[in-house]
Amino acid sequence: SVNPDLASERQTASFSVEKLTALLDGDAEQTRIRRAVVEAIESDPVFSRENQYFQTQNERYEAAVRKAVHLQKKMHEMGWTENGPEYKYIYRALSGDVAFLLHRVFMRSISVLGSDKQIAKWIPLATQHKLIGSYAQTELGHGTYLQGLETTAVFDTATQEFILNTPKISAMKWWPGDMGRSATHTVVFAQLYIHGKCYGIHPFIVQIRSLQDHSLCPGITAGDIGPKMNFEHIDNGYLLLKNVRIPRENMLSKFCEVRPDGTYVRQGSQKINYFTMTSVRISLISDEVLTPLMKACTIAVRYSVVRRQSKLKPGEQEAKILDYQTQQEKLLPQLAAAYAFHFINNYLQELFNRGYTEIQRKNFDMLPELHALSSGFKAVITQHCTAGVEICLRACGGHGYSLLSGLPSLYTKILASCIYEGENTILLLQTARFLIKCFMAGSAGQPVPPSVTYLAAVKHGKCPAKNKLDFLRPDIYTEAYQHVAVRLTSSTAAKLQDLIQSGVKKHDAWNQCTVQLVQAAKAHCHYIAVKNFAETVEKLETKAGIQKIMKLLCDLFALHGIFSNTGAFLHDGYTSAAQMDMVTASYLDLLAVIRKDAVPLVDAFDFTDQSLNSALGSYDGQVYQRLYEWAQKSPTNQMSPAYERYLKPLLHNTLSKL
Amino acid sequence: SVNPDLASERQTASFSVEKLTALLDGDAEQTRIRRAVVEAIESDPVFSRENQYFQTQNERYEAAVRKAVHLQKKMHEMGWTENGPEYKYIYRALSGDVAFLLHRVFMRSISVLGSDKQIAKWIPLATQHKLIGSYAQTELGHGTYLQGLETTAVFDTATQEFILNTPKISAMKWWPGDMGRSATHTVVFAQLYIHGKCYGIHPFIVQIRSLQDHSLCPGITAGDIGPKMNFEHIDNGYLLLKNVRIPRENMLSKFCEVRPDGTYVRQGSQKINYFTMTSVRISLISDEVLTPLMKACTIAVRYSVVRRQSKLKPGEQEAKILDYQTQQEKLLPQLAAAYAFHFINNYLQELFNRGYTEIQRKNFDMLPELHALSSGFKAVITQHCTAGVEICLRACGGHGYSLLSGLPSLYTKILASCIYEGENTILLLQTARFLIKCFMAGSAGQPVPPSVTYLAAVKHGKCPAKNKLDFLRPDIYTEAYQHVAVRLTSSTAAKLQDLIQSGVKKHDAWNQCTVQLVQAAKAHCHYIAVKNFAETVEKLETKAGIQKIMKLLCDLFALHGIFSNTGAFLHDGYTSAAQMDMVTASYLDLLAVIRKDAVPLVDAFDFTDQSLNSALGSYDGQVYQRLYEWAQKSPTNQMSPAYERYLKPLLHNTLSKL
Repeated sequence: SVNPDLASERQTASFSVEKLTALLDGDAEQTRIRRAVVEAIESDPVFSRENQYFQTQNERYEAAVRKAVHLQKKMHEMGWTENGPEYKYIYRALSGDVAFLLHRVFMRSISVLGSDKQIAKWIPLATQHKLIGSYAQTELGHGTYLQGLETTAVFDTATQEFILNTPKISAMKWWPGDMGRSATHTVVFAQLYIHGKCYGIHPFIVQIRSLQDHSLCPGITAGDIGPKMNFEHIDNGYLLLKNVRIPRENMLSKFCEVRPDGTYVRQGSQKINYFTMTSVRISLISDEVLTPLMKACTIAVRYSVVRRQSKLKPGEQEAKILDYQTQQEKLLPQLAAAYAFHFINNYLQELFNRGYTEIQRKNFDMLPELHALSSGFKAVITQHCTAGVEICLRACGGHGYSLLSGLPSLYTKILASCIYEGENTILLLQTARFLIKCFMAGSAGQPVPPSVTYLAAVKHGKCPAKNKLDFLRPDIYTEAYQHVAVRLTSSTAAKLQDLIQSGVKKHDAWNQCTVQLVQAAKAHCHYIAVKNFAETVEKLETKAGIQKIMKLLCDLFALHGIFSNTGAFLHDGYTSAAQMDMVTASYLDLLAVIRKDAVPLVDAFDFTDQSLNSALGSYDGQVYQRLYEWAQKSPTNQMSPAYERYLKPLLHNTLSKL
Repeated sequence: SVNPDLASERQTASFSVEKLTALLDGDAEQTRIRRAVVEAIESDPVFSRENQYFQTQNERYEAAVRKAVHLQKKMHEMGWTENGPEYKYIYRALSGDVAFLLHRVFMRSISVLGSDKQIAKWIPLATQHKLIGSYAQTELGHGTYLQGLETTAVFDTATQEFILNTPKISAMKWWPGDMGRSATHTVVFAQLYIHGKCYGIHPFIVQIRSLQDHSLCPGITAGDIGPKMNFEHIDNGYLLLKNVRIPRENMLSKFCEVRPDGTYVRQGSQKINYFTMTSVRISLISDEVLTPLMKACTIAVRYSVVRRQSKLKPGEQEAKILDYQTQQEKLLPQLAAAYAFHFINNYLQELFNRGYTEIQRKNFDMLPELHALSSGFKAVITQHCTAGVEICLRACGGHGYSLLSGLPSLYTKILASCIYEGENTILLLQTARFLIKCFMAGSAGQPVPPSVTYLAAVKHGKCPAKNKLDFLRPDIYTEAYQHVAVRLTSSTAAKLQDLIQSGVKKHDAWNQCTVQLVQAAKAHCHYIAVKNFAETVEKLETKAGIQKIMKLLCDLFALHGIFSNTGAFLHDGYTSAAQMDMVTASYLDLLAVIRKDAVPLVDAFDFTDQSLNSALGSYDGQVYQRLYEWAQKSPTNQMSPAYERYLKPLLHNTLSKL
């Protein structure tokens, strides 16, 4: 039975939850396919995550391998294929709790970087799991700066082999998933040396474990890097190479080849490489970043209408905590952000698909813009969503701190997204470099990519809003965001120019502007996100209340951004203090309005209880019963040797010498 | 041998590290005592935390109990007593990784709330560990709002007993430390009923486990609440009571007594109760909040001068990451905050001691101010320091995410401080209520406590700074902070009045102002912290470079606060845009200056390698060696059954039916 405090929230929805779910999925057919996948996965006990919060890292790893192997069988049974419409829902249905994710990266590297011959040899082996692949790029001492990698591959013309070494401890490969315990092969990135000359970083296929008995191959030292904040199910590994010899054919050679005599040949464009990183950054947003935030919102919002604490009005029963303005101000902006970023993700996907088509036609014009947007949004979305999950966790008080709430593991997992696939600060500075370049080009009258044409059209007006309702006009707030993005970019460009003109060296000048460059990059992304949300809302059908509620969320997303960062808007007087008070009033009004639809808005994310894996967030809202029943199953309720060993001697005063 | 990249940082210290350590400890004698305690604890293998990151929750619990029991012996051996000068350093030296903390709360409750007779009976038993106590207040459905607790204690005149019940699942006691597995007794808070009339919440001593065999007593259901984000070493528990009978003498009766005939007698003032919460909130700041931030700064700063990544100048070797402005901007403000909050903690301790003296003289005048300051600062400091630890973690990239860095456990532990001992938002609203009250009183010409007299002296001036150097004047920035605190309090008071005058009911009006009230409370605390830091610096001796470096940190703390929250200062034009640009310039300049002393500044915190328990933060900076050696010991490098069970059949293609 559904907790009446939760049930009542659903009776007053201003829109059709089912229609909103279909909008999020793409259409009703996609919703049907997704649910069928979820149903198939969740009804299979092998995929259960019920004991996850009680398991050790070793147990998590073993379960993930078991699931990965079982998944092969399941896909066969269900008739799911890697090109079928179900495929993209499998990982989400498993909540990512499965091994061999790097096996897929291994395969993709070979497909992208390998010659036709290499593809023909390795891809079938990998597809049939006759080997398990990993991807060894990051080193103990080197991450972001690929040119700094220290692993070497020296070509030996005599034997037609590459000799691989990790010459120093800092050169050890560190972090690669699936490598600590599972992988038999890996793609190693190393500095290529031929006849003593360094040709830079290249990829090599290296076998690390025996296909017979899984023992380490000669010259290989490998293992697991130990406990992490999350990802216990993944065996992130280390790898030392000592004079490991591999045949010449194992250098992935779509773009570069070493001939038998040691001649180095470069062929084709490597720009596509660049595109791969872009693709990874965009592809992780949905499953790794948006889904955790949506789950956290679902858990925290449902809990907040079931939890009652203190009295809002004297004489009444204790109030639902979501009725407190401070609780609304914590949770509802996160909900709005989840929708905003869902829509920007759609935008990036479309842009990416267009870019891919162009690239296949050998047109690389879109690459810089794609790179800048994917870098900036990877950073902004991971940062925003990580903060959002943490806010949801804290907003649930003590119960949010229990692993059984599901929130701690959502947080510790999403946090990694700020670090992997490009550290966020570095990524924002790449976006900023693009902005500065385009700003200069635009100022000089040169053409710039579509997403940054606004930078050239600097206007020195004032915000025209006259009352608080004006701040519910997308044109008003979008323009305010645009103004801030232009101001931050142009003022930092000016500072950079001033420094250089005053004699500071270019690289020093850049370093002295980086804090402000990061601000400019964030402002750019925030502006695009607001603009895109507003445009998305405009295109929605007006039926079923969807457009109306999305408009409210768009307003909230925009005004929350202004309210939380008033200085950026006040700085040059574009927005006056009186207008800022209007923003605050409109923003606080919106909280009370959207609060009414909070539960339907999280219901529309359509997470099953199993996928939430949370005592606080279940559809029926029976929070306390669930916490109690679950806690009783914890291993911490087994008999502990601590009593006989320590407590009993203490209590019975039989401790020696005390 | 010390990593040369770290060693070089120590050669250029602008001040005496040893002198600064003594300042932090109080004086050189305190440093000596502290180090002796640390030495005694760390040389004893029972207290080792070396395997902590590899242990399960059960193993952590067992180790914590073992340590707690061993500590009794150790104290005896060393001649340490609870009233001796060493005592306060023991918990810090153990990094809090020890059981029976609630036993101390149990004893304090009896001392504060019990009659002389009760104290005489129970305290000796507890001191000699003839029982193990806990403290059962929070319920599954009730935390902050004590009046809402549902546990009942019904007086039975016939048997002269109280009958205790947790009548609903939401009434179950939940979270009490040491209760899940260890405690034999607990103080239970319950609604007292006599002859059918409810007298509100009272404390009762209840035995929950047998002193003979530790089995649960009749009517008691108790256990462990399961996995949490941290505190694996503590057995936070649940407790169900079903018709549990305890003698009349077990109600703690210093302030209230139930006579044999059921007459309820109230005696003395209960204000002291109020004081207990204040005392707990202040006492947790040092060990639970400042120490973790200081440790995180130590780890992140040392790592940031050892880690080299990318080139700052073309042609040079890769740069130390602390040389990047963005890295400085992440870490150095946290370092400044650690010092700022250390000094405000001293201020609060002094105020508290004065308050305690007054209260012993039956003068309760200081209580409201003490309550407001302790609530506000508990919230502001825990929030700021938690965010600071998270920034340090993220600033270490992938290695920060490894448990072996020490940062994840610092973060997951400090996060709890935002939730326990009063949820932060609730606490800030209590501070805000005090501010509004004092503002109204001050405006009406009535006297107000010293810390808030500034609210009445509203000045409508402008910031007088004329160039960026003016923003290194404490009078200039302190006044700016004061102005903002006054503005936020007065404008929210005005909004509250307006709402009430326009017919909104008082409690609704309050709720509609809470987001802004929280801002006002934070601004008040921030102002006091800046003012106190500036005053502390002024009093420091000018020798040994200490005052100079502390002045720089004070400037950084103040300017970082303005830079991160420009809107508050720009809003009414107190600070102009041009002045804000001066703030930014001075702030960024300071980063580069303080960066030079970053390592000496963290060295002064004087943490041993054992207490940091971090592969990244050790004194010698041998990061990569340590990570590698430590990882090899991880249980994840033991043989896994996953190979034989799943990987081998997959690789050998012997999985059935595939």
